[in-house]
Amino acid sequence: MADIVTAAMMVIGDEILSGRTKDRNIGHLADIMTAVGIDLKEVRIVPDEEDEIVAAVNALRARYAYVFTTGGIGPTHDDITADAISRAFGVPCEYDAKAYAMLEASYAARGIEYTEARRRMARMPRGAAHIDNPISIAPGFRIGNVHVMAGVPAIFQAMLDSVLPTLETGTRLLSATVHCPYGEGTIGTLLADIQKLHSETIIGSYPKYDGGRFWTELVVRARSAEALEAGRAAVQAMVDGLAAKA
Amino acid sequence: MADIVTAAMMVIGDEILSGRTKDRNIGHLADIMTAVGIDLKEVRIVPDEEDEIVAAVNALRARYAYVFTTGGIGPTHDDITADAISRAFGVPCEYDAKAYAMLEASYAARGIEYTEARRRMARMPRGAAHIDNPISIAPGFRIGNVHVMAGVPAIFQAMLDSVLPTLETGTRLLSATVHCPYGEGTIGTLLADIQKLHSETIIGSYPKYDGGRFWTELVVRARSAEALEAGRAAVQAMVDGLAAKA
Repeated sequence: MADIVTAAMMVIGDEILSGRTKDRNIGHLADIMTAVGIDLKEVRIVPDEEDEIVAAVNALRARYAYVFTTGGIGPTHDDITADAISRAFGVPCEYDAKAYAMLEASYAARGIEYTEARRRMARMPRGAAHIDNPISIAPGFRIGNVHVMAGVPAIFQAMLDSVLPTLETGTRLLSATVHCPYGEGTIGTLLADIQKLHSETIIGSYPKYDGGRFWTELVVRARSAEALEAGRAAVQAMVDGLAAKA
Repeated sequence: MADIVTAAMMVIGDEILSGRTKDRNIGHLADIMTAVGIDLKEVRIVPDEEDEIVAAVNALRARYAYVFTTGGIGPTHDDITADAISRAFGVPCEYDAKAYAMLEASYAARGIEYTEARRRMARMPRGAAHIDNPISIAPGFRIGNVHVMAGVPAIFQAMLDSVLPTLETGTRLLSATVHCPYGEGTIGTLLADIQKLHSETIIGSYPKYDGGRFWTELVVRARSAEALEAGRAAVQAMVDGLAAKA
């Protein structure tokens, strides 16, 4: 098991960039990656433009162990992810025989016409493996280290569930949170000193503002339980010390 | 007024990539950009790592008219945005005399110690202009085409409000939505034909799934009211035609 396994996400869709649709997949992927011990290192949101998708996926797949994409694999003319990913990998985008037959059977069983648009969903880069779609049949796909999934959150989540068991995971980054009733201005210097002393931890300070008052959530992260507890105890002692003085 | 003005956003913060904090700024910026007529073309979420921030901001500021960043300008050790942006522009990161005095006076008036951590918030790239912060005083800043703002949503939104009047805006992309009770498989081929005929519009199909049934929102976008209305009418006619056949 590698110590650190990295990932990036590429969200594809004009509707996210225009504000019309609010993304709900980034937070979900981030949560899941943290839970299984993969470090999500970068997210890019790109428009429905083939050149942009190709450039972004090539940049990301070269740098990170895994890339996860959402969006653009439906049946309409603005769904160009399969074409773009094929071009990024330098392979033809073509009907996948298994996907084609699966969709054909599914539509036939429901008495729905297997239109050209619906057949589009069977297209993927030559050599890609399916990612199961238990909700609406049309599969996502994996090619190399790139996992191409749907943008509709319920389908994205189901596809991700089926991908997870296939991923190599790293040593999980453990975390502990210390509630701190003081703002960052109060704790900044003290916290920086603790970070220097506890170099095996990553200490984050997340300022909160409720409209009238600042407080912070202090999050200690480490890959060993010992380092985590030592860092957490030091942060808690700082907060307790400030409270005693107040 | 330029026809098209572009922008990119860079969200800085491990807490977003870990899932601990769910971003609320991307959707807000996207809405505002659309409202004022600036095309948000790309978003990147990057970790609290100086090399990553420098590389991303240099890539984005070279490509787009404006770059907006959120996060990493507070007083704690993990707030490294001012240093990273300075390095990206090749200028020193130093105390800004006006910001330093403003913060000093604000803390003095409240009887709060002006700690080293608090003084950190007065640091910015040499030559940067302030972005007002009506909520917690410590300013954001602008250097070149890069606007550096806070990650706390209330403060980000206030800062963005003060930046908006300074931005050049483009011809606003108008949009009209047609509710479509049919899934993408039903409409895909027809919609692609409409897109071909109405080349001055951008027609997007946004699949919705409510747990049992698929439907779509069809969004027509154009920079002229005439093109928009022609495209919208064609899409509506398609939906009406399908309903008449059903």
